[in-house]
Amino acid sequence: MARMSDRIRSIAPGGDDGWGIFHAARALEEAGVEIVNLTVGDHDIRTDPAILAAMDDAARGGATGYAALHGIPELRTAIAKRVQERTGVATSPANVLVTTGGQAALFYAVMGAAEPGERVLYPDPYYATYPGTVRAAGAVPLVVPTRAEAGFQPERSSLEAAGEAAAILINSPNNPTGAIYSRDTLDTLAEVARAGDMWVISDEVYDTQIWSGAHLTPRALPGMDARTLVVGSMSKSHAMTGSRIGWLVGPEDAIEALSAAAVHTTYGVAGFVQAAALFALGLGPDFETRVAAPFAARRDVCLAALERTSVRAVPSGGAMYLMLDIRASVLDAPAFAARLLDEKRIAAMPGDSFGRAAEGHLRIALTRPEAELTAAIAQIANLVEETRP
Amino acid sequence: MARMSDRIRSIAPGGDDGWGIFHAARALEEAGVEIVNLTVGDHDIRTDPAILAAMDDAARGGATGYAALHGIPELRTAIAKRVQERTGVATSPANVLVTTGGQAALFYAVMGAAEPGERVLYPDPYYATYPGTVRAAGAVPLVVPTRAEAGFQPERSSLEAAGEAAAILINSPNNPTGAIYSRDTLDTLAEVARAGDMWVISDEVYDTQIWSGAHLTPRALPGMDARTLVVGSMSKSHAMTGSRIGWLVGPEDAIEALSAAAVHTTYGVAGFVQAAALFALGLGPDFETRVAAPFAARRDVCLAALERTSVRAVPSGGAMYLMLDIRASVLDAPAFAARLLDEKRIAAMPGDSFGRAAEGHLRIALTRPEAELTAAIAQIANLVEETRP
Repeated sequence: MARMSDRIRSIAPGGDDGWGIFHAARALEEAGVEIVNLTVGDHDIRTDPAILAAMDDAARGGATGYAALHGIPELRTAIAKRVQERTGVATSPANVLVTTGGQAALFYAVMGAAEPGERVLYPDPYYATYPGTVRAAGAVPLVVPTRAEAGFQPERSSLEAAGEAAAILINSPNNPTGAIYSRDTLDTLAEVARAGDMWVISDEVYDTQIWSGAHLTPRALPGMDARTLVVGSMSKSHAMTGSRIGWLVGPEDAIEALSAAAVHTTYGVAGFVQAAALFALGLGPDFETRVAAPFAARRDVCLAALERTSVRAVPSGGAMYLMLDIRASVLDAPAFAARLLDEKRIAAMPGDSFGRAAEGHLRIALTRPEAELTAAIAQIANLVEETRP
Repeated sequence: MARMSDRIRSIAPGGDDGWGIFHAARALEEAGVEIVNLTVGDHDIRTDPAILAAMDDAARGGATGYAALHGIPELRTAIAKRVQERTGVATSPANVLVTTGGQAALFYAVMGAAEPGERVLYPDPYYATYPGTVRAAGAVPLVVPTRAEAGFQPERSSLEAAGEAAAILINSPNNPTGAIYSRDTLDTLAEVARAGDMWVISDEVYDTQIWSGAHLTPRALPGMDARTLVVGSMSKSHAMTGSRIGWLVGPEDAIEALSAAAVHTTYGVAGFVQAAALFALGLGPDFETRVAAPFAARRDVCLAALERTSVRAVPSGGAMYLMLDIRASVLDAPAFAARLLDEKRIAAMPGDSFGRAAEGHLRIALTRPEAELTAAIAQIANLVEETRP
């Protein structure tokens, strides 16, 4: 075989890159083995039939050709309206690029914010695709450590110690920790970004999953709309993970420039999927609240179940995950997760997948019914007991 | 606003990048102005209702979560089978990556074949996204001129004169010229690729649109399966342009490495779209022949209509376009295309959009009913007459 480029090989450098358990779980499922899969934030709640009906109507109605490459105007308008209503920041359709899920928006944001070889900072722990996404876009990932004792909020000293960078990528509500960044944290981030002439790439795909406190976007801070690129998605808010539709919101000129990335990497998003998204946004904030509600309930049930064990969850304010502290086990988290899958047929992500700050933890996605989650928690606690020193 | 990266700005450096007429046509359509849009290869024939029904069934049946990131196994198997049957080259599911249309496959192929800064060759004229795609992937585009007198087939002298490169990107049947590369041409390309240890990226999205001669893939030449990445798509073969589903076929290790690009740029393709593609491939080669048939008929009708004018088409063997020689006009092709849209409400791409070798030509996509095409040809001929020196 001719030689594959180093840079493609660098994206996911092999070995246990954080996705080992995820892939093993998929392979078992594909082989017909029943497992409780708590690896990723994939809704067990299916996309609402009314949304699927809207998609079908659009497809049968003729939306099967290329759709407008920035996104159809009606959808850009609907996204702008949602963003403005939720954040108070003036937002027009020209501030919106429709993308193939939040992942594509993230990729484009890094491409636009950083020259090849420039650094992109993000707090550790982090969502598992961040390092690969930054590398895929030719930039250099650099983590900013956070501390459990500081609620996993990025701190000024760590940010300043990181040095020069083209952008800082944040995610609040946070995957995997559930942290919701405070006004103080965001003010600090904004100051650091301004001082270093950096972009803030704000991944806000969990903006409807707020269990305590309130979501604040850095784009709403004074002057920050000129240096913030917001990654949004219908995946979590509307239970449309599989539809692969999201958006990037930013300054008009940036969105125009970034549309070139969309043209040349995907040639736009299916028109019938855009029609489904438009319909879904039309269902309004009440629908989004209904989609989020089961996760709030599951979180409460899980926290209650944990009370009956010696395992503790890291306190969190949002998002569809819990981080469980399994440091009472002699196993490190990857070994623990492997054994949990092997022996108990439960798939959960080792904290190590999300950075060093999450070592010794296990992330469970609250993507199964309550009874399965409480049973899984009992099994996780059992495995901790079985593997005490 | 903070500064957008040079590299994102370099993808589509602004001005008339070849898409000016396309965007102007879209804008008119969105404003409700009726035009005859012959700019892009977007099927006027809609996706078959049976395919859309399969998509709806899959979506309602629960395929609304994340799908397998390389593509669902059944679809990879079906694509491998199609490729093997059409080309005779042994192909397994592990040789197949399912992508967000042929455009994503093309982007991943360049990422995998070339290090940042390495050169990627392609014959001029070329499909309008090639330069931007190569630049988006961080590589350096370099055209290899072809000559109308040589049927727009790449020639050894031009290939060798181009010098070192990581890959050569070809497209046969060719957009925009309709050229089908001969066995001789492909042998030459293969020799040059072997001599320079280059990848061949073979964009074969028009493989069902063969009006004379036969389609041959470079992957079928001796030893070339180890250095060929084939870009495929359901867009043209199955009239599924808007579904954004295609594939990349290549050596197993390359496909595995390239899947990292898919994960980090799109996080896979919608499961219900994959189900639709699986159903569509199951309709077999007869269905593909039926989808291609109207273009053969339109081409014949257009060639007959041209006989009644002084405008000539460049001889072509395949694909859904005709290149018209408009050098009898005083206007260059961009000016001609602009005036054609302005005065006659016909949108067609200036040859300049596809490289210097296509200057003085106008590309029309055969994506409207026969009567509209013949009327458009009459109008184009009229405009040539009205603008003679």
